[in-house]
Amino acid sequence: MNKDGFALAVHGGAGTLRRGDMSAAQAAQYHAGLHQALVAGHVILAAGGSALDAATAAVVAFEDNPLFNAGRGAVFTAAGTQEMDAAVMDGCERRVGAVAGIFGPRNPVLVARAVMEHSPHVMLIGEGAVAFAREHGLAFADPEYFHTEARWRALQQTLAGDDLAEPDEARRHGTVGAVARDRAGNLAAATSTGGMTGKLPGRVGDSPIIGAGTFADNASCAVSATGHGEFFIRFAAAHEIAARIRYGGQTLGEAAETVIGKLGAKGGSGGLVAVDHNGAIALPFNCSGMYRGYVEGDGIVYTAIYDESYRKS
Amino acid sequence: MNKDGFALAVHGGAGTLRRGDMSAAQAAQYHAGLHQALVAGHVILAAGGSALDAATAAVVAFEDNPLFNAGRGAVFTAAGTQEMDAAVMDGCERRVGAVAGIFGPRNPVLVARAVMEHSPHVMLIGEGAVAFAREHGLAFADPEYFHTEARWRALQQTLAGDDLAEPDEARRHGTVGAVARDRAGNLAAATSTGGMTGKLPGRVGDSPIIGAGTFADNASCAVSATGHGEFFIRFAAAHEIAARIRYGGQTLGEAAETVIGKLGAKGGSGGLVAVDHNGAIALPFNCSGMYRGYVEGDGIVYTAIYDESYRKS
Repeated sequence: MNKDGFALAVHGGAGTLRRGDMSAAQAAQYHAGLHQALVAGHVILAAGGSALDAATAAVVAFEDNPLFNAGRGAVFTAAGTQEMDAAVMDGCERRVGAVAGIFGPRNPVLVARAVMEHSPHVMLIGEGAVAFAREHGLAFADPEYFHTEARWRALQQTLAGDDLAEPDEARRHGTVGAVARDRAGNLAAATSTGGMTGKLPGRVGDSPIIGAGTFADNASCAVSATGHGEFFIRFAAAHEIAARIRYGGQTLGEAAETVIGKLGAKGGSGGLVAVDHNGAIALPFNCSGMYRGYVEGDGIVYTAIYDESYRKS
Repeated sequence: MNKDGFALAVHGGAGTLRRGDMSAAQAAQYHAGLHQALVAGHVILAAGGSALDAATAAVVAFEDNPLFNAGRGAVFTAAGTQEMDAAVMDGCERRVGAVAGIFGPRNPVLVARAVMEHSPHVMLIGEGAVAFAREHGLAFADPEYFHTEARWRALQQTLAGDDLAEPDEARRHGTVGAVARDRAGNLAAATSTGGMTGKLPGRVGDSPIIGAGTFADNASCAVSATGHGEFFIRFAAAHEIAARIRYGGQTLGEAAETVIGKLGAKGGSGGLVAVDHNGAIALPFNCSGMYRGYVEGDGIVYTAIYDESYRKS
């Protein structure tokens, strides 16, 4: 890492299957999904593109992959509906776009980005956000596209009181996200989620809340979080990391570890990916695992699920 | 102010009528509305009640007063609908409740409080939040209750392109809020708004965004903001003030003035009320005026609209 280099880190949700319950074939699928998202962002950064475009592209790749709880793979609410949230933030001018409670647009993160670029607002929710997406020509998908059997089965089991039916927390209430630093030194963050299986309709977690699950400021860092969103909101987790760097004299790694540790001490499980203005990366989590990875200027893609050595590819 | 005392500060929106356009009778109405909200909270604090109850009660008083843009006096969206947002935060345990895009419940701040106290979530939006309010027995009001002629006329004029028809910015996109410190040293914040006249349906501002328009933490301060919400979200304004106190060594007054100044320099008009763990109060704004006031242990109620001496009552 050097200050003229670029960096991209992603997560596909915290709270994975217990290590013993994850087959080699399943693990390989997750590594492949992480790899795909990292490559989608890396090609942009390597060509001199922006951190914002790279973070967005990585999240789009996750949203299109039914393995992750965002976009196509979104989980179902208690009412059997799907409600998606997403946000993007450009650390250059602190521009922001966020959406919550939407269903229909194929890529919620692109709706968030359109809110940022084509509206005077920073957050739109529900039908108003969907109408905005339609007016701005964003791609929609049929309900069948979003209906994956595994998610539907997980809801039925959750409603039947079998919370252990889906032992993979990241699949019950996961999130996907990406943070990037481009060659020009700009930072960006993007996050997208389908929420929690069996959640109350209308529940919004930390993903679209700027300063909680998503934040980027060139003066400090870019952060995208995953996990028990309520805790990340209460602790303004993403902005807290930025503040500890700016005013507390902490490094990115110290600040990120401290915040995740404090959340964990209060019972809030989860993790995050972060990159600072020098291109340093942090990927802390306080639970069994977090689907995650990163790539830098050399193009080597690092991916991991548990507290293990990263796979290189 | 002393560390065993209590304090309450409120705002009824930033960006008032130009001083010359405000009749003495109009000004008297605003002072009376501020006075009523302050007294509603003061009786609770004086009796040894909690900061959370006092801040909530002050906001309920504003919501019931058609003069202010929250609850009964909520403005209309471009579609002719009304959508309300609110949040509460308890600085003691950083408990949080927030709602956005709701219509029907008489007091949105009480729905936010119910989310905090009776749900595992911290934020509910739209129909899901309304259904939650109904299930929890919160009071609803008829559409006629929320339909005030002045707000409806303001929308028609806004839609006709006459932005100056309502020169009082606080009436176009105001917010109400309260912050309190109780005798036990606990802090709390509450904020409620009807949004912006003529806004896109689904637009959410800073009021229900924890860390942006509402924040409370006993270790630092409680903040409730008003003004151009998009800027307060981008700057995580409320949490930024807390961070400057905790890590930056600033006093509440310095931190609040700095953040409002920085927002103003970027074109973001507005203000906020804040109280710190010692009971110090700050009420900065960077626009023509802000409906505001405060009361402490001596029970004297101070209210002001412009950069003027406070009225005592």
